[in-house]
Amino acid sequence: MNEIKIFSPATVANVACGFDVLGFCLDSVGDHMVIRKVEKKGIHISHIEGFDLPYETELNVAGVSALAMYNTLDLDFGFEIEIYKKIKPGSGIGSSAASAVGSVFGMNELLGRPFNKTQLTAFAIQGEALASKCEHADNLAPALFGGFTLVKSISPLKILDLPSPDGLYATIIHPQIEIKTSESRAILPTEVPLNKAIEQWANLGSLVHALHTNDFELIGDALNDVIIEPYRSQLIPEFKLVKEAALQAGALGVGISGSGPSIFSLSQGLDTANTVKEAIASVYKNTEIVFEIHVSKINTQGVKILK
Amino acid sequence: MNEIKIFSPATVANVACGFDVLGFCLDSVGDHMVIRKVEKKGIHISHIEGFDLPYETELNVAGVSALAMYNTLDLDFGFEIEIYKKIKPGSGIGSSAASAVGSVFGMNELLGRPFNKTQLTAFAIQGEALASKCEHADNLAPALFGGFTLVKSISPLKILDLPSPDGLYATIIHPQIEIKTSESRAILPTEVPLNKAIEQWANLGSLVHALHTNDFELIGDALNDVIIEPYRSQLIPEFKLVKEAALQAGALGVGISGSGPSIFSLSQGLDTANTVKEAIASVYKNTEIVFEIHVSKINTQGVKILK
Repeated sequence: MNEIKIFSPATVANVACGFDVLGFCLDSVGDHMVIRKVEKKGIHISHIEGFDLPYETELNVAGVSALAMYNTLDLDFGFEIEIYKKIKPGSGIGSSAASAVGSVFGMNELLGRPFNKTQLTAFAIQGEALASKCEHADNLAPALFGGFTLVKSISPLKILDLPSPDGLYATIIHPQIEIKTSESRAILPTEVPLNKAIEQWANLGSLVHALHTNDFELIGDALNDVIIEPYRSQLIPEFKLVKEAALQAGALGVGISGSGPSIFSLSQGLDTANTVKEAIASVYKNTEIVFEIHVSKINTQGVKILK
Repeated sequence: MNEIKIFSPATVANVACGFDVLGFCLDSVGDHMVIRKVEKKGIHISHIEGFDLPYETELNVAGVSALAMYNTLDLDFGFEIEIYKKIKPGSGIGSSAASAVGSVFGMNELLGRPFNKTQLTAFAIQGEALASKCEHADNLAPALFGGFTLVKSISPLKILDLPSPDGLYATIIHPQIEIKTSESRAILPTEVPLNKAIEQWANLGSLVHALHTNDFELIGDALNDVIIEPYRSQLIPEFKLVKEAALQAGALGVGISGSGPSIFSLSQGLDTANTVKEAIASVYKNTEIVFEIHVSKINTQGVKILK
């Protein structure tokens, strides 16, 4: 096998009470990539479609993560990468993570899987760092492992593959505004009230238990972010109305996807997820904000080979 | 049935990363209580052994929680309570919780179980509040439900009954010094660094996952309290040495039990728990501190009827 076509999925990180550690994987949105063995040594980006991204390997997220893996090996051949980008950069659903994951997953498959998923995540972190200026794995982990993942720690890298109840669907709305990463970071406090922190970890512990016990009601009760959302939601127009509309339409819970501006909802069943879609769309239809909406089941497989 | 004898167990609250929400139940230490239906209406404390506690119902923890339940009912009889106190008050292993739980559990059994365990916890909270001056359930919940419990919230009261891996043992050392509750509260910060809070909730999420998956290694990795322990451990003599000795002897993790002064360790297997016991005892044997040590399997049943 010298060539492989893969689907690298969008993901939601900073899942409510799981800020900085919890993510989940989407099914209906993702990039396509072709990874090909070639004679010329090194990593070569040969084609990019969808969005304007750099061809220079060292400046391209997929290129940097590919290089991180390639440089640990002593190969007498190289790899060519074609990127068919569908996840809009800056949308808050793991666009750079999909690129970073796709190249290392594809190369690993072509090489006969010398690396496990945690090792692949470690390579992908290098690519993700190019995009986000810091090492984090909360989009990478769900893209590679699928379902819900908890990044226990970055150093040492420890990723927990959490169970994902059948019938859980996400509705993601992406208002097409730009939030600068620097702004979404600067707005966060460096210190938080202890009582709020306790509430947050009670919720995260409860959410992990709910995922293990298929307790949808508890998923809803636990999906609360009392620490970060009060700050970052200020940067997202109509956040409060969207949240209220989604909950009234039957969503279990609502939160900011990544550092925004996308907003995710989780629902039990596709019908409810679609009802939520209509409800939140109607909020932005009353404004001048251009938006996209995705409904997706939770993707328990993660990145995968197409055909 | 007009009389019942019960065992009301000691418990560990504030379990490392689960400060204020996570507790577990012990098996080898606990109070005995006799609850008896009597003609005279009301709640009557008729006998106390072991420690000097008040006989006035309204001043006695077991009396107050019993009254909280009794006053919701319209009974033409009363209850008499005998308390054989074995858990030393102030030791940090849920002495007041055992009293508060024992009376309501026993009465509920004699009445044919009109109340579920969460309702019993709500009554017991009234008794616990007498002792600790605040409403909390992190010792009450494991005493009533057994095993590990997570108190998701107090209002509304929501308790999660977590799984408890077979073969998990606790070693508890109680240095017989007095820490004033006011002091152990005053030493806590009202604000904590966001990055430490994130580490704490990553650990608690991981610990809940570890309990569900019987992952002893992960239990050890997750049993870290980066928020409270640095403060409260200052109040416990030789805490650092005890912790190091326990970990070197093979304990999975170590933390402050409740608000101290007791220190708990968790170990896989009774042999390791006993090795840990020897190791930590040797630390205090070099000092003038009087101490007690208990080794106990995790009690998955909680409060129970004796014979």
